[in-house]
Amino acid sequence: MSITWEDVLAARRRLAPYLPVTPLRRYAALDEAIGLRVLVKHENHLPTNAFKVRNGVSFMTALPPEQRTRGVIAASRGNHGAGLAWAGEQLGVPVVICVPHGNNPEKNAAIRGFGAELVEAGRDYDESVEVATRIARERGLVMAHSTNDANVLAGAATLSAELCEQAGEFERRSREGQDDRGERAALDAIVVAVGGGSQAVGALLATDALRPGVAVHGVQAAAAAAIHDSWHAGTRLTTPTADTFADGLATRATYDLTWEPLRRLAGFVAVSDAEIADAIRLLWRTTHNLAEGAGAAGLAGLRQLRDRFRPGASVAVILSGSNLDEPTVRRVMSGEL
Amino acid sequence: MSITWEDVLAARRRLAPYLPVTPLRRYAALDEAIGLRVLVKHENHLPTNAFKVRNGVSFMTALPPEQRTRGVIAASRGNHGAGLAWAGEQLGVPVVICVPHGNNPEKNAAIRGFGAELVEAGRDYDESVEVATRIARERGLVMAHSTNDANVLAGAATLSAELCEQAGEFERRSREGQDDRGERAALDAIVVAVGGGSQAVGALLATDALRPGVAVHGVQAAAAAAIHDSWHAGTRLTTPTADTFADGLATRATYDLTWEPLRRLAGFVAVSDAEIADAIRLLWRTTHNLAEGAGAAGLAGLRQLRDRFRPGASVAVILSGSNLDEPTVRRVMSGEL
Repeated sequence: MSITWEDVLAARRRLAPYLPVTPLRRYAALDEAIGLRVLVKHENHLPTNAFKVRNGVSFMTALPPEQRTRGVIAASRGNHGAGLAWAGEQLGVPVVICVPHGNNPEKNAAIRGFGAELVEAGRDYDESVEVATRIARERGLVMAHSTNDANVLAGAATLSAELCEQAGEFERRSREGQDDRGERAALDAIVVAVGGGSQAVGALLATDALRPGVAVHGVQAAAAAAIHDSWHAGTRLTTPTADTFADGLATRATYDLTWEPLRRLAGFVAVSDAEIADAIRLLWRTTHNLAEGAGAAGLAGLRQLRDRFRPGASVAVILSGSNLDEPTVRRVMSGEL
Repeated sequence: MSITWEDVLAARRRLAPYLPVTPLRRYAALDEAIGLRVLVKHENHLPTNAFKVRNGVSFMTALPPEQRTRGVIAASRGNHGAGLAWAGEQLGVPVVICVPHGNNPEKNAAIRGFGAELVEAGRDYDESVEVATRIARERGLVMAHSTNDANVLAGAATLSAELCEQAGEFERRSREGQDDRGERAALDAIVVAVGGGSQAVGALLATDALRPGVAVHGVQAAAAAAIHDSWHAGTRLTTPTADTFADGLATRATYDLTWEPLRRLAGFVAVSDAEIADAIRLLWRTTHNLAEGAGAAGLAGLRQLRDRFRPGASVAVILSGSNLDEPTVRRVMSGEL
């Protein structure tokens, strides 16, 4: 592992004054549709509607005062950038975010809305990273990589740390017979969408510390499956493109700090854009929460994985984020996607 | 007033173990679109995605043990029913919900999902009330009116009590210069959607106690404007129909416990279904929260009222709820509505 459980505990202490614990909920209609107990972690309730704000606050609060004064820069497709911008606004740290040309305009507006400077450059996320690295050097800014950073990973792990503790509450209710179906439940697995892998590495760390035996499965978009393909090949691969509407998952490579830990995932599936869109619609119908592609990909993966779990198994998915632009909502809801 | 501030404080104590405080947030893009500081109260984060769960928990927790054993019945277009069903599930109280024929199927599914018995009867909400009253008598159930009940009103008032306290935090930040625009802010008004009026009466109670001077404005759907029309006429009127897609606002009459207090509203506007749909789209674009009609009607009303406020005024709206069925999302997002 690239970080320790102590790092995660330290991140939790740093995040506590800024971010609330997000709810973990069950929905009877979703359980029925999937045929399992599905626990939904509502990261869409965070102030940027995505778990990435945990990463941003963790990164920002760990910076020494001298580096906060210099300011922070990052490349992002949106949620990492919004998370850093939000954290910067809270802490009074100047933030610059590089997004690729043609990026989701509503994510761009949110980043600007949190007071950050927005730079549009590069054809995709990986090219924006190159631009951000250059600007960081030129302007003396601190670079906040969306994945390859120990404090970012520690921030992401706070999500699964909360989830493991909250699952204990479901189990306690079940043991005490307060469960709606009178069954005994224990958390069996977490299914996690993988863009750079911070969320998945966080889930591995948290389950190691709090719930050994809980399986962590990864999900990527089939059109941006570099990490999925690498996992199955057992060697690091890249892809030439990353053309999924789930922009939070649109990466083309593995990352140094997450690749090795991710090899320990219990399974790794790839889901088509149509499967992701269908999962968004299912989440809407059954929970009335609207997820973006990356936020529903875990559920799309769970549908593929379903038969690997015992009947009545409890599986958690993470609803993060919800930053879908209006034209994409239209396409998803009309069935065009 | 039909209830006292002490009743509201008692309801807050009863709700605290069950419901979290919901966030009050500002969004730069929404401020810009409206031309005012807009504070959004996120009642869509509650476990039923609507403030009505406050009313349900307040009602249920106030019942003596003997009445809890008998069980509870109510008529609802969805959110009141879901709130009671959720509260009943938490407290082990049997719940029956009567909805009119053709009611939102996803709201019906949510009510059943929380373990309640669903009865479809009557052509609209007011007819469902008659059916529920009859069944209550026949089966010895306790009737929980969605508006005409002191504990329901006290539950709704907890929303505005929180809001008034949270607005103080915005003001403190503004005074300390932490505000993003360096302006001095104070809460000027709350704009509240009116179905039966529990939310609006709650806002009047809370501002009386905590923020005297804050104006409370009411909003109804133009196609279901009985209370709006009554307010302007100064006398209680009914309408023959209530044909708005904002089903949470589809009432045809005034209610005994809310009519007199509502006469004290600072203003009362009616908004068309097209204006409500447009407010849903604006909320989505600027906050990435998807509201149902009743949940966006406050914002639609604020757009009409905008010129009545001083430049730079701070106005709160309540995002509650988010229980739009999938076909309606499609119609709203495609611009059909």
